[in-house]
Amino acid sequence: MEPGPHGYAAARREADGPSLTSSAEFHRWWDERLRSGGFSVERIAFDRLDSWAFDPRTGNLGHDSGRFFTVEGLRAREGSRDVRSQPIIHQPEIGILGIVVKEFNGVLHCLMQAKMEPGNVNTIQLSPTVQATRSNYTQVHKGKVTRYLERFVGPDRDQVLVDVLQSEQGAWFWRKRNRNMVVLATGDVPLADNFVWLTLAQVRELTQRDNLLNMDARTVLSCMSFALPDKAETAPVDAFGAALVRSYKDETADGGGTGGGHALHTQREILSWFTEAKTRCEWSARLVPMNEVAGWTRNDREIAEAGGGGKDFRIIAVEVAANTREVAGWTQPLLHPYGQAHAAFLTRPIDGVLHLLVRARPEYGLMDQVEMAPTVHLLPGQDLDDVSEPFLRDVLRAGAVTSRYDQVLSEEGGRFYNALTRYQILEAQEDFPLDVPPEFRWVTVRQLMDLLWHGHYLNVEARSLLTCLYSLR
Amino acid sequence: MEPGPHGYAAARREADGPSLTSSAEFHRWWDERLRSGGFSVERIAFDRLDSWAFDPRTGNLGHDSGRFFTVEGLRAREGSRDVRSQPIIHQPEIGILGIVVKEFNGVLHCLMQAKMEPGNVNTIQLSPTVQATRSNYTQVHKGKVTRYLERFVGPDRDQVLVDVLQSEQGAWFWRKRNRNMVVLATGDVPLADNFVWLTLAQVRELTQRDNLLNMDARTVLSCMSFALPDKAETAPVDAFGAALVRSYKDETADGGGTGGGHALHTQREILSWFTEAKTRCEWSARLVPMNEVAGWTRNDREIAEAGGGGKDFRIIAVEVAANTREVAGWTQPLLHPYGQAHAAFLTRPIDGVLHLLVRARPEYGLMDQVEMAPTVHLLPGQDLDDVSEPFLRDVLRAGAVTSRYDQVLSEEGGRFYNALTRYQILEAQEDFPLDVPPEFRWVTVRQLMDLLWHGHYLNVEARSLLTCLYSLR
Repeated sequence: MEPGPHGYAAARREADGPSLTSSAEFHRWWDERLRSGGFSVERIAFDRLDSWAFDPRTGNLGHDSGRFFTVEGLRAREGSRDVRSQPIIHQPEIGILGIVVKEFNGVLHCLMQAKMEPGNVNTIQLSPTVQATRSNYTQVHKGKVTRYLERFVGPDRDQVLVDVLQSEQGAWFWRKRNRNMVVLATGDVPLADNFVWLTLAQVRELTQRDNLLNMDARTVLSCMSFALPDKAETAPVDAFGAALVRSYKDETADGGGTGGGHALHTQREILSWFTEAKTRCEWSARLVPMNEVAGWTRNDREIAEAGGGGKDFRIIAVEVAANTREVAGWTQPLLHPYGQAHAAFLTRPIDGVLHLLVRARPEYGLMDQVEMAPTVHLLPGQDLDDVSEPFLRDVLRAGAVTSRYDQVLSEEGGRFYNALTRYQILEAQEDFPLDVPPEFRWVTVRQLMDLLWHGHYLNVEARSLLTCLYSLR
Repeated sequence: MEPGPHGYAAARREADGPSLTSSAEFHRWWDERLRSGGFSVERIAFDRLDSWAFDPRTGNLGHDSGRFFTVEGLRAREGSRDVRSQPIIHQPEIGILGIVVKEFNGVLHCLMQAKMEPGNVNTIQLSPTVQATRSNYTQVHKGKVTRYLERFVGPDRDQVLVDVLQSEQGAWFWRKRNRNMVVLATGDVPLADNFVWLTLAQVRELTQRDNLLNMDARTVLSCMSFALPDKAETAPVDAFGAALVRSYKDETADGGGTGGGHALHTQREILSWFTEAKTRCEWSARLVPMNEVAGWTRNDREIAEAGGGGKDFRIIAVEVAANTREVAGWTQPLLHPYGQAHAAFLTRPIDGVLHLLVRARPEYGLMDQVEMAPTVHLLPGQDLDDVSEPFLRDVLRAGAVTSRYDQVLSEEGGRFYNALTRYQILEAQEDFPLDVPPEFRWVTVRQLMDLLWHGHYLNVEARSLLTCLYSLR
């Protein structure tokens, strides 16, 4: 199996074939997992944190071992003017988010895990085979060995299909990346408790349920652009489905406005647009001691914006008791958003090929300042009516869009407490303008898939939405 | 003209055709520029710097305007252990290094500039059309407008052929990138003083002279992988030349060890190797106040390693008087290395296709910690005999390599004082091992060219050597 960065077509695998696990079996199994959880998550005061403490000199919150992560301060400046001060999670280690895939009966299956995370609104979610920080797998906390890890690292690992560093939330993490991996097993893979084999089509289908497929699974799946529906094998449901299938195609990548290809812009034009967007950033951000973060205060239970008018998030602490994680119980800090965010891709067919309206979005915690994001990304409390760009707001207010996808999904439950995002894919009508403000561009799905072989292009919300898009017909 | 990120073949232009400027004319013109320079560069004490000062609180050296760059401290840590402390140049703005190209008589020409930089060992060097920091072109220093800049930015710019952010020296700069651009002019381009039209072949040929083509020109030229020699148009001189031409070819990019292609590894394998190299970095680096940099001291004329045993560099100040730059005279700090560095690519044909032995090299100032570097990169005072890897040292000591390129070239004269690097391209014999330590990989030129459409892959020394390689036959 040789996808190659430019060889998606060569990696085709039947995604719709018979599964080892029927959907009914999966849901029975899932309900069982939910019932047998046996854990609790409780908010606690900071002074009940075990092995975590505030550094008296800096005010940073960290673990005694110096590992895991710290809560520090971020300050962004334009020239000599402060434009943003906030707490931020700093975790310089690169972890692994990995899915083992294997063919059964000629159909590619993914080994997925029912995994508890303390911040999950519903305790367990469906996760990649392996989800390991470096601290996890070098066993700083002396827990159990991470299962299946040896299939991703070391001399005897399986065949690597995907291996790329991808960013996570730039608003909450300081330059965090994880290694997104997919490996193909050919030998025997014993099935452990809390793991299940599902076909790619089944896993993608689970994006149609609220809060089931976790963020880590979604980001890895976004990089698995193989076995997508093909016109030859699937009769598209409607014009949208047909345009979507065309948007996956190889030939769109090198086409261009001048050459009669299928994409509105050549990939070179997209890269130049993105480069230009980065040069427009006048700010630079750096870590500072939490003590120097203006406008935020700490009491015994949370770090929050002073004055109580917080709209973004606060830092809290929790105590966890669980059977299904590497250790039996622990305490840790979490970032707790004040409400639900909202991310949406506006799409439209252009000459019969579906295009997504991506936005070059700066975020203070991103390593390279700007990544490609969904068309709109609203903070808790805002609605589509609050979109600031008139060309978008008008069409959204008028309801002149068709919703193709609309679910609430969770962000990383190991660092965020009850962080929910409403994800939408909206189809605009054919008269929606192609000429858009400089921070936006119309791109095909294939163009985004090609960029996913590299890091620092698509942000985590855009990747989540791509995975949701793959589930559509 | 549509190179496209994957469409090098489509961008072919005759490079060897007749030039507007014969080589004899160029060299006469160059000698004239040298004679008419009329400038001087003098080392001065820090207290003679005008508008530059040390911040009493941090010890950082900066400009009163808050622009240009600062000299700050860098500290890298592994866990809680310091692994490196040093001064570092911090310049968060993204500048433009741009070359205007235009066809004359059907041959692509580059508009090059004779440009003085205070750190140049020979005062002027051949530079891109435009070499502008953001401070330059927003005119913080109230000098003249940067010539030809309007061809790269704004609504009336020329057609963009190359537009990518590329890193610079990770040992001396904190996360510095410049925007490498090439634009194609179709209308009239008036020729200003100190500018000259040369064909791509002529510019590449100038890498065969010591200290003539400056670093900024070399990095932009490395991204211009069009109009390279083709087997069909050029009879290769020998087996090396034939292997080099094959190494440029399209079909090598998607080949693989399993599929009988032309490259030893698939591009996907190269990307995975590179991802893995990043995860091996256990250190993280951050900016700190210069006052907190241990082991370095400042007197009235330099910041240097304490004890006088400095092997790397010191920070100095200079006063410049010149006619040919945007303003008539100025003072500024510069980084002054203690001697000449040495960078070399080891190459060998594999199945008739030239491969380069790249190294995943960590540098503390790189944004993403690791980039692909030449096989060896030695500090001043070290020679090839000092290479620490036995598999390399043995072959180099035994002299079992053929030198294909060997010149001394200068690094950025606007920030570094007399920073010279000996660049070499060495050909190993066919029995040199293909199985190399984990930080090395054999790659084709084409594979590197494909990565140059993106930033953070090839470091600046690797890019310089690629440009030198393009000059070989």
